[in-house]
Amino acid sequence: MFKITLLPGDGIGPEVTAGAVRVLQAVQKCTGVEITMQEALFGGCAYDKTGTPLPEETLRLCLEGDAVLLGAVGGPRWDNLPVHLRPERGALLPLRKELGVFANLRPSLIFPSLADASTLKREVVDGLDLMVVRELTGGIYFGKKQREDLPEGGYRVVETLEYTTGEIERVARVAFELARKRRCKLTSVDKANVLESSRLWREVVSGLAAEYPDVELNHMLVDNCAMQLVRNPKQFDVLLTENMFGDILSDQASQLTGSIGMLPSASLGGKVGLFEPIHGSAPDIAGKDIANPIASILSVAMMLRYSFNLEEEAALVERAVSAVLEEGYRTTDIMQPGMRRVSTGEMAELIAGKI
Amino acid sequence: MFKITLLPGDGIGPEVTAGAVRVLQAVQKCTGVEITMQEALFGGCAYDKTGTPLPEETLRLCLEGDAVLLGAVGGPRWDNLPVHLRPERGALLPLRKELGVFANLRPSLIFPSLADASTLKREVVDGLDLMVVRELTGGIYFGKKQREDLPEGGYRVVETLEYTTGEIERVARVAFELARKRRCKLTSVDKANVLESSRLWREVVSGLAAEYPDVELNHMLVDNCAMQLVRNPKQFDVLLTENMFGDILSDQASQLTGSIGMLPSASLGGKVGLFEPIHGSAPDIAGKDIANPIASILSVAMMLRYSFNLEEEAALVERAVSAVLEEGYRTTDIMQPGMRRVSTGEMAELIAGKI
Ligand SMILES: CC(C)[C@H](C(=O)O)[C@@H](O)C(=O)O
Ligand SMILES: CC(C)[C@H](C(=O)O)[C@@H](O)C(=O)O
Repeated sequence: MFKITLLPGDGIGPEVTAGAVRVLQAVQKCTGVEITMQEALFGGCAYDKTGTPLPEETLRLCLEGDAVLLGAVGGPRWDNLPVHLRPERGALLPLRKELGVFANLRPSLIFPSLADASTLKREVVDGLDLMVVRELTGGIYFGKKQREDLPEGGYRVVETLEYTTGEIERVARVAFELARKRRCKLTSVDKANVLESSRLWREVVSGLAAEYPDVELNHMLVDNCAMQLVRNPKQFDVLLTENMFGDILSDQASQLTGSIGMLPSASLGGKVGLFEPIHGSAPDIAGKDIANPIASILSVAMMLRYSFNLEEEAALVERAVSAVLEEGYRTTDIMQPGMRRVSTGEMAELIAGKI
Repeated sequence: MFKITLLPGDGIGPEVTAGAVRVLQAVQKCTGVEITMQEALFGGCAYDKTGTPLPEETLRLCLEGDAVLLGAVGGPRWDNLPVHLRPERGALLPLRKELGVFANLRPSLIFPSLADASTLKREVVDGLDLMVVRELTGGIYFGKKQREDLPEGGYRVVETLEYTTGEIERVARVAFELARKRRCKLTSVDKANVLESSRLWREVVSGLAAEYPDVELNHMLVDNCAMQLVRNPKQFDVLLTENMFGDILSDQASQLTGSIGMLPSASLGGKVGLFEPIHGSAPDIAGKDIANPIASILSVAMMLRYSFNLEEEAALVERAVSAVLEEGYRTTDIMQPGMRRVSTGEMAELIAGKI
């Protein structure tokens, strides 16, 4: 019996999460897996109702459950609040920290039926299947931040980037293990020619290599990696990065597919995993029943695989998504000539129907 | 009378710099501009000969001249030296700091005859012409770096990212001025939803906007920018970034062209400007007379324009490059079927001949 906490959040979050719930119900019915779900307030909507974007009750529910399914948070409405009340620094970052999810997995995968959606030439991205493993609870995101007045006027901001051997080792192990289940190639990204933290990063990752002789490890500077993702992204299998580099490179990698409405993510390492689409809250299309629920549905697949160890059920969901795409159904964001346009709800229903 | 200090450096640095010197000589002969050049040791080769990658004599020559033309530095031979002796942290970063070149200009430009070299679809990059203005002497590159032993074994690294109002303002002004001479669009990149330095960055840049009412300013988060550079790079005119973000995004942007052997850079703000190709030292092809000298030649054009204020002469060099490309001459890195392959020296000669 698995307990899932739902945090639909803001913008299109509630719609896509509803789609994912529909699919979870189908999985439950067909496979007998027992799942309970409860919803909690999180993000801008939580601020509006309770005065804080991460209510204690929400955090308690998340920590008590087995996994968290998050929709999306944020929007212009909350952009001018003091920093600690905004969805990002007031809710998302503290949630990651509290859950202890130090390993963020972001697949970048091209569905054959959508290869033309990429802005890259077909031969460059066709068959692309890489996974970014991003450290998620350290680095400059969680360092000290201070702003001081200068005597001559203006300010100086000083923030710190911190990493310990232990923090690097645990996320590197996740990446090695994952590479082992995939194509056995691991690229560790850093800026070792400039940053001391990157030198430690490289030392620690290299030190683990002997324990994973079956995994081919190489190191790449972050600026070169940003180039290689444009030049030849198919050279990569698993990419391992610290927090900020991973934020940038995983977004770059996801856009290579041309259809980020399709891409899920998993944040692991604590007792409770956190699963969410990589797309944002898209306030401009919220409430119109046109958002693509597939990223959220594939986040459910990652939850089944990584939190519940239900590989069969995860694959079931993924096959259902592929089948519906192959039959020509498309939400607006991935619409192509000759295909059939469906709403958020219809897409979720079609996928649930295949399960 | 302009005094140029040449720092050919390592790998292909000397070859491409020789090509640029050839073109400078042609400019001198045809326009009557008076130029003197003197060469100095810098990088790995300087370490080999003098025990330090940035000899005092070199720094003195650079500071006494009007501009510095750098080839490239670094290579596997020097990768295992202690950090302060390596070409990057021992020479390149100190040189930037000593020259006070806080504004790094990196154009990303597609030559019509080379549009097919991009891995992106032609319509996505055709006519691409953006300029990254990267802060070059601050941020985490020049913060404190310390490594401490942990009681339980292993290390903690703490480094600082620092910015002051003044540091942000001066580089932002360069970007606004540049936008004004181009298409009047400025995109300032930051991570204001997480970093305090980015919040200061956004405040300072916004505060300047009133002084440049003709420039359309917008702010973009760095992760979104990495996506937008893949999705629709032609939306950009000038991109303004702090040091580390600029390192990553400018390399990503340059690779969009598919021919980074073509791209120059200028580092400005001090008394003496620093000009260099964005490509590296490419030790694997060094000494073979096959490297592309065009990035170095176009760096000379930037020098003529930005350090010497010789717009006509700069344009002359740029037109010479375009003309030779249109006639079908190509170095190996940009070779296409039906074109004529030439060596480094031949390419430089052809371009000099057009002047
Ligand atoms: C919203 C923001 C704080 C967040 C991050 O930078 O981690 C987002 O960009 C992401 O990647 O999940
Ligand atoms: C070599 C390295 C220190 C340098 C940097 O990071 O600035 C290089 O990548 C660049 O962009 O000029």
